Amino acid sequence: MTSNNERNGQPQPGRRRFLRQGAGLGGVALAAGAPAPAQAEVLTVPPWTRTPGEPVLWHAYGQPSAFEKNVIRRNRGPAPMPGANSSMTPLQDLRGIITPTGLVFERHHAGIPQIDPAQHRLAVHGLVERPRIFTMDDLVRLPSVSRIHFLECSGNTGREWRAPSATSVQISHGLLSCCEWTGVALSVVLEEAGVCPDAAWLLAEGADSATMTRSVPMAKAMEDALLVYAQNGEMLRPEHGYPLRLFLPGFEGNMSIKWLRRLKLGRAPFMTREETSKYTDSLPDGSARQFTFMMDVKSVITFPAPDHRLRDKGFYEISGLAWSGYARIRRVEVSVDGGRNWREAQLQEPVLDRALTRFRLPWRWEGGPAVLQSRAIDEAGNVQPLPDQLVAARGYESTYHYNAIQAWRVSADGSIANARA
Amino acid sequence: MTSNNERNGQPQPGRRRFLRQGAGLGGVALAAGAPAPAQAEVLTVPPWTRTPGEPVLWHAYGQPSAFEKNVIRRNRGPAPMPGANSSMTPLQDLRGIITPTGLVFERHHAGIPQIDPAQHRLAVHGLVERPRIFTMDDLVRLPSVSRIHFLECSGNTGREWRAPSATSVQISHGLLSCCEWTGVALSVVLEEAGVCPDAAWLLAEGADSATMTRSVPMAKAMEDALLVYAQNGEMLRPEHGYPLRLFLPGFEGNMSIKWLRRLKLGRAPFMTREETSKYTDSLPDGSARQFTFMMDVKSVITFPAPDHRLRDKGFYEISGLAWSGYARIRRVEVSVDGGRNWREAQLQEPVLDRALTRFRLPWRWEGGPAVLQSRAIDEAGNVQPLPDQLVAARGYESTYHYNAIQAWRVSADGSIANARA
Repeated sequence: MTSNNERNGQPQPGRRRFLRQGAGLGGVALAAGAPAPAQAEVLTVPPWTRTPGEPVLWHAYGQPSAFEKNVIRRNRGPAPMPGANSSMTPLQDLRGIITPTGLVFERHHAGIPQIDPAQHRLAVHGLVERPRIFTMDDLVRLPSVSRIHFLECSGNTGREWRAPSATSVQISHGLLSCCEWTGVALSVVLEEAGVCPDAAWLLAEGADSATMTRSVPMAKAMEDALLVYAQNGEMLRPEHGYPLRLFLPGFEGNMSIKWLRRLKLGRAPFMTREETSKYTDSLPDGSARQFTFMMDVKSVITFPAPDHRLRDKGFYEISGLAWSGYARIRRVEVSVDGGRNWREAQLQEPVLDRALTRFRLPWRWEGGPAVLQSRAIDEAGNVQPLPDQLVAARGYESTYHYNAIQAWRVSADGSIANARA
Repeated sequence: MTSNNERNGQPQPGRRRFLRQGAGLGGVALAAGAPAPAQAEVLTVPPWTRTPGEPVLWHAYGQPSAFEKNVIRRNRGPAPMPGANSSMTPLQDLRGIITPTGLVFERHHAGIPQIDPAQHRLAVHGLVERPRIFTMDDLVRLPSVSRIHFLECSGNTGREWRAPSATSVQISHGLLSCCEWTGVALSVVLEEAGVCPDAAWLLAEGADSATMTRSVPMAKAMEDALLVYAQNGEMLRPEHGYPLRLFLPGFEGNMSIKWLRRLKLGRAPFMTREETSKYTDSLPDGSARQFTFMMDVKSVITFPAPDHRLRDKGFYEISGLAWSGYARIRRVEVSVDGGRNWREAQLQEPVLDRALTRFRLPWRWEGGPAVLQSRAIDEAGNVQPLPDQLVAARGYESTYHYNAIQAWRVSADGSIANARA
């Protein structure tokens, strides 16, 4: 058997790496594992070992343990209209990079349509040589591709611009998830319809009653856009676009139109309401940035976060997520002293293009106040800004595309708060 | 923006790759997308677009669409005892490499215990310097690691030895799944307890009422074994070992002891009932292979499989899974003519060490009989054998570790059957 170092290029987990970084595991022992008092007690038989368990197939489709009932999607509160709301992913409770589909965030403009896949159609028209109507059977039969990518709402963390107040990383950063997406390359379908030479933009329309619409540059459509029907192995869930959605890697989430029913090719952007009343970024001089598709480089510490409380002094593993719409994450730096010193975190391998990247750093909490921050840098050279740097460039009038460094303040009692609140 | 070719090392999806392989998309048009008859019909508004959809948060924890109710775990039938059974993953309905946790296969020896994580303990004793009892809080606080790996029951496909009869790839190959696993390196916990120099084996014991036990070589325990508490981002499900299981990458599934409560270090294997009455492989000369931990190189075509029926002639994408307990998959070859000719399939990137690897190959069905097979080769040089080659080496008395090439026979009516049935 080859050694672990020779596999995946993954660094050795655990003790050796940990010791290299100079934190030493001695103190961990204080928290990790009490001495076994006596052999008899070690072998005490708990109640669930005394009787047979639940039969197999109590669920043909499995569900979480009842003890995990607080690990759910949440939102900020009632929405102006019942169907126009969002729900956030509980980042504080998750591990690794894959978001379980039942906890992938939602953002809807008119609720969740219940679509019969046998009745669903995708129309392709406008500047094409051969207008086409596709059934789901047609699309699923085409060559398929699967990729692991993050999806983030452009409004994620938007409240940090002017009113940093979130008491939970789920509420501040939870419009963010990462899944394995499977579908057909949009380029295959468009080439099937025959793209006219003057087609420069594509309108994507959803079958929800908001008929959510966005304009997509043809370059993106032909480069790496997908018509997705499966997520984390199984067919999309209703709230994520069942049976078909657009997926635009690295672009703001609302453009990955759910319940996709129509693609129209044209010469210019279609100036839908979602690109005038919404999803533009107001600037200090009164102008607005429009068509700000790309999600910027960003990161957040998910443990410890305001959702947690440190029980006692000693070892903790700081852990979080980094991502960029431009490229792979190259490096994540973590500060525990409010930004005076930064240490490089370990990145979970493999680091995938435009996927969430898990970072980890060992830390010893001495029991006093501390300010924890993470800073991501991507392979395109983009560096996550400080809040002041972002405000200097974009002012206070924006809602979307806030990507500044997040700071969590640890108090001496072990509680954790938003440092800018 | 960089081109797709520069990202992830992934080959270009869709048309260009497809054309390179000489199958041409012209015929796909016959199946994929009818001409749009008239603009009016393209824009017909379906019922789900006329009224607002379900409000957000109708499920704080999402569920599949009701239209997907047949995508479930299944088993062969009633078990001798209610708790001693298995359920299989519906490979015929899944895409990509990640198995959604609700569909990950099960194998239990005494049902599913319902364990309170606050009460659960892991004892480490035997040949250690400092016997320890760990709470879940202790373990989760230690340095963590996440890896994407397959898990396969050593009995998977066992009926193909003597009675190839499965009418479903779910039943023949569905004791197989692939997830992102998160936990603490077992080496960290063992070094915390202090491994005595003469410790050569480790007993792992589950808290189910079967007190499932297996012996694990210390080399494996120290190299890459994990104490896993999370699967695909969230905490383990009850049927997969909540709140704690052992995970041994590449080894047969039963050794990754669920509901893990005890680790005892010793000088020799512990010869539990699971390594004498079960999980040994009888050979023609009357002897038995014991401690056959490693899962061999293997693959299977999941579409088209006996679960499907081809509707009409023309383009199909043959798709399947390959895996090996030894190393990454290097190459998968596919034959559509009963083994006379083999073509190399495309592997979904990234190809991960000891993870399921998705392979795909474009195919044009001419409407006649065909026999479809896949053959996997791993980076250690292992080649998946033909059934006759496996039988020549191991005879007909084994149940476990069947890894031969699977053949599906396509009939002229489009139905598909096990070619050896």
